[in-house]
Amino acid sequence: MSITANDPNRKTWLEVPANSDFPIQNIPFGVFLTRDDVITIGTRIGDTAIDLGALHQLGYFEGIPLTDDIFLQDTLNDFISDGKKTWRLVRNRIADIFDANNASLRDNEEHRKVVLFTLDEIEMQMPVQVGDYTDFYSSKEHATNVGTMFRDPDNALLPNWLHIPVGYHGRSSSIIPSGIPIHRPQGQTKAKDATEPTFGPSQRVDFELEMAFITTDANHLGEPIPIEEAEDYIFGLVLFNDWSARDIQTWEYVPLGPFLAKNFASSISPWIVTLDALEPFRTESPKPEKKLLPYLQYEGKKSFDINLEVFLKPENGEENKLVQSNFKYMYWNMSQQLAHHTVNGCPVISGDMMGSGTISGPTPDSYGSMLELAWKGEKPIKLKDGSERKFIEDNDTVIMRGYCEKGDYRIGFGEVSTKLLPVFEPKKK
Amino acid sequence: MSITANDPNRKTWLEVPANSDFPIQNIPFGVFLTRDDVITIGTRIGDTAIDLGALHQLGYFEGIPLTDDIFLQDTLNDFISDGKKTWRLVRNRIADIFDANNASLRDNEEHRKVVLFTLDEIEMQMPVQVGDYTDFYSSKEHATNVGTMFRDPDNALLPNWLHIPVGYHGRSSSIIPSGIPIHRPQGQTKAKDATEPTFGPSQRVDFELEMAFITTDANHLGEPIPIEEAEDYIFGLVLFNDWSARDIQTWEYVPLGPFLAKNFASSISPWIVTLDALEPFRTESPKPEKKLLPYLQYEGKKSFDINLEVFLKPENGEENKLVQSNFKYMYWNMSQQLAHHTVNGCPVISGDMMGSGTISGPTPDSYGSMLELAWKGEKPIKLKDGSERKFIEDNDTVIMRGYCEKGDYRIGFGEVSTKLLPVFEPKKK
Repeated sequence: MSITANDPNRKTWLEVPANSDFPIQNIPFGVFLTRDDVITIGTRIGDTAIDLGALHQLGYFEGIPLTDDIFLQDTLNDFISDGKKTWRLVRNRIADIFDANNASLRDNEEHRKVVLFTLDEIEMQMPVQVGDYTDFYSSKEHATNVGTMFRDPDNALLPNWLHIPVGYHGRSSSIIPSGIPIHRPQGQTKAKDATEPTFGPSQRVDFELEMAFITTDANHLGEPIPIEEAEDYIFGLVLFNDWSARDIQTWEYVPLGPFLAKNFASSISPWIVTLDALEPFRTESPKPEKKLLPYLQYEGKKSFDINLEVFLKPENGEENKLVQSNFKYMYWNMSQQLAHHTVNGCPVISGDMMGSGTISGPTPDSYGSMLELAWKGEKPIKLKDGSERKFIEDNDTVIMRGYCEKGDYRIGFGEVSTKLLPVFEPKKK
Repeated sequence: MSITANDPNRKTWLEVPANSDFPIQNIPFGVFLTRDDVITIGTRIGDTAIDLGALHQLGYFEGIPLTDDIFLQDTLNDFISDGKKTWRLVRNRIADIFDANNASLRDNEEHRKVVLFTLDEIEMQMPVQVGDYTDFYSSKEHATNVGTMFRDPDNALLPNWLHIPVGYHGRSSSIIPSGIPIHRPQGQTKAKDATEPTFGPSQRVDFELEMAFITTDANHLGEPIPIEEAEDYIFGLVLFNDWSARDIQTWEYVPLGPFLAKNFASSISPWIVTLDALEPFRTESPKPEKKLLPYLQYEGKKSFDINLEVFLKPENGEENKLVQSNFKYMYWNMSQQLAHHTVNGCPVISGDMMGSGTISGPTPDSYGSMLELAWKGEKPIKLKDGSERKFIEDNDTVIMRGYCEKGDYRIGFGEVSTKLLPVFEPKKK
């Protein structure tokens, strides 16, 4: 089935600001609370949010096999379970409904009133209930930087890194949408020269620039997903800020990996941009440097050219651009990650989220974390207001943005913006 | 509120076999499929399964604030969300309904017909939808054994181990109830003397004897749970077999921890025994060997005296007892684990599952994994049929059982039994 929603020549009867991340060719999926305190599934064109539940009730999806309540839910999990064919039919139909030449909704004021919202009338929610969250470690530049800093510059990459898309399990319950502030975590740390650990606020709170993909129901317990089928099970992507507390991590992570250093929060952009919408931006992954085992070998372009940016905004200050990176720098692609994740028969279901790992590029301005940008604190970052940063300070806001662009054709992710509040103070009893 | 359900003198009008794990003082909670293909929440007394959905519809829980459909669900998550006071009221009421002196259900044949099932009429399901699964590493003997084998006998424990209840995130989607067979996983391994990894079936599939506790909604993002409140948020426990592929683990686990070596399957016993039912079996934890940071300090008895056993049954063979261990050997108790898990503000919700880590005791017959029992394969285990085991072989069944006992008073967990099938063969197209 062709993805008619991607037609670059299509215009819409909705107003779309110049350089919008959300032209009619994007059609992402999200969940929002409306002005009437109702939760619904929706999409967005320009700065207009569209209630898909209302559209469906009004009959605009006639002919597409959907249950009556598929969009009247507080997560996208069931819709994602419907599978790629259904997502494509719905996205094509939405493009058609909002096509400049289609009068049915355009000229029906009563319908428009219940379907369309301005952005200040809605509040974005978590788009999915995340079953399991896995974080990979798939940027060679990031793994090399970390290995150089903490181990041995001559053997920065560990022996398994070029053979395995290394990954580990993260915490689902602390994944939050853009806009929700977080508190500086407390925990155990141990100074290098100390004999005993101490307890207190982390002094090295960091962001990690990542993207995450969301899956549909893919396989049963025991059954691997072949790499050539992997993309059939990927619904779409979001921006992902994998908040990290470096000092907690250093003390806790041997031998079982990061735990409290990561699970206090991870933030995502709330609109899931479908893999279909990213189709025009396919690109090559870096060439494998080692011969891969057959289950990780692939053909064709399995990566995507997505510009990624990170900004830091101090309290009452201006935004400072810290990072300019790209999703395409990832050494291991999503198909390899999913094939690896399931090669032992691990089941993947609708709503699972898989992070890329910090995406660093080849140049210092493309490093995806403060740890790397300020090189363990040795090279503090100067901000416009004259202050310096080694890590993130209280009341700083970290904003990540991402978009694909080819001439005038732009598909964006919006942003994930998260403010770091001071340590949580329990109410006195 | 007193736990009248624990009255040791109470008799029931149901038949209870001698030495049953499920006397009227237990009253665990589970989910089962009935003879009519309906899923319901239930409990068990002796060898009788009891449909709590039916009991509720018939009015037996009158006076307890419960929604009408609280037991007509396919998981216990909502009931667990209702909180400790409600669990206690329900358990006390069930004890009352089945008390030998209570005629209301006993003498109502029509009601009994819809409420009671024999065990062969039901099929146990997963009792909860697991949001997040965390695995701790809380047995000092196990950590010491592993450290001795793979690192340095003189420094077997890593520096953080006596300060932190070390834990990591596991995979929820592959947690299965007793009775579901699993396939031998495939994956990458690298022989010590090889330069490149190879792909194939794991040659070192192992069990890990653990228990896991299940939580209720405990805290909001950013808010720690104080250690003295931790038990308020623990619903109950199950037996937990954390299947492991040792050869896959060795190659993959640096630096981010175990991943595919663990996430192919974990099996649980299907009846959740409440913390309330275990109350008479409280016991001391091992004395801390280091001064603990205040958030990990506790008062009173926070561990439980639970006998744990592991059996191996070859295809068509007899059961061989491999392990006799006890939950009380755990160095870190559940209150410490939960306080640590949330000290950074990580939110814990209804249905989360937290594994103890392999529970090994001080003597070789109490080691909780084949890795330790057969000491890396150096001391193969002899079975009754004359065969030997270094790890688990195809078509072996691993069975774990657990129970508390004081004289005649016994509270048990039943069993978790899982058969290891050969590698999965995809159907030819």
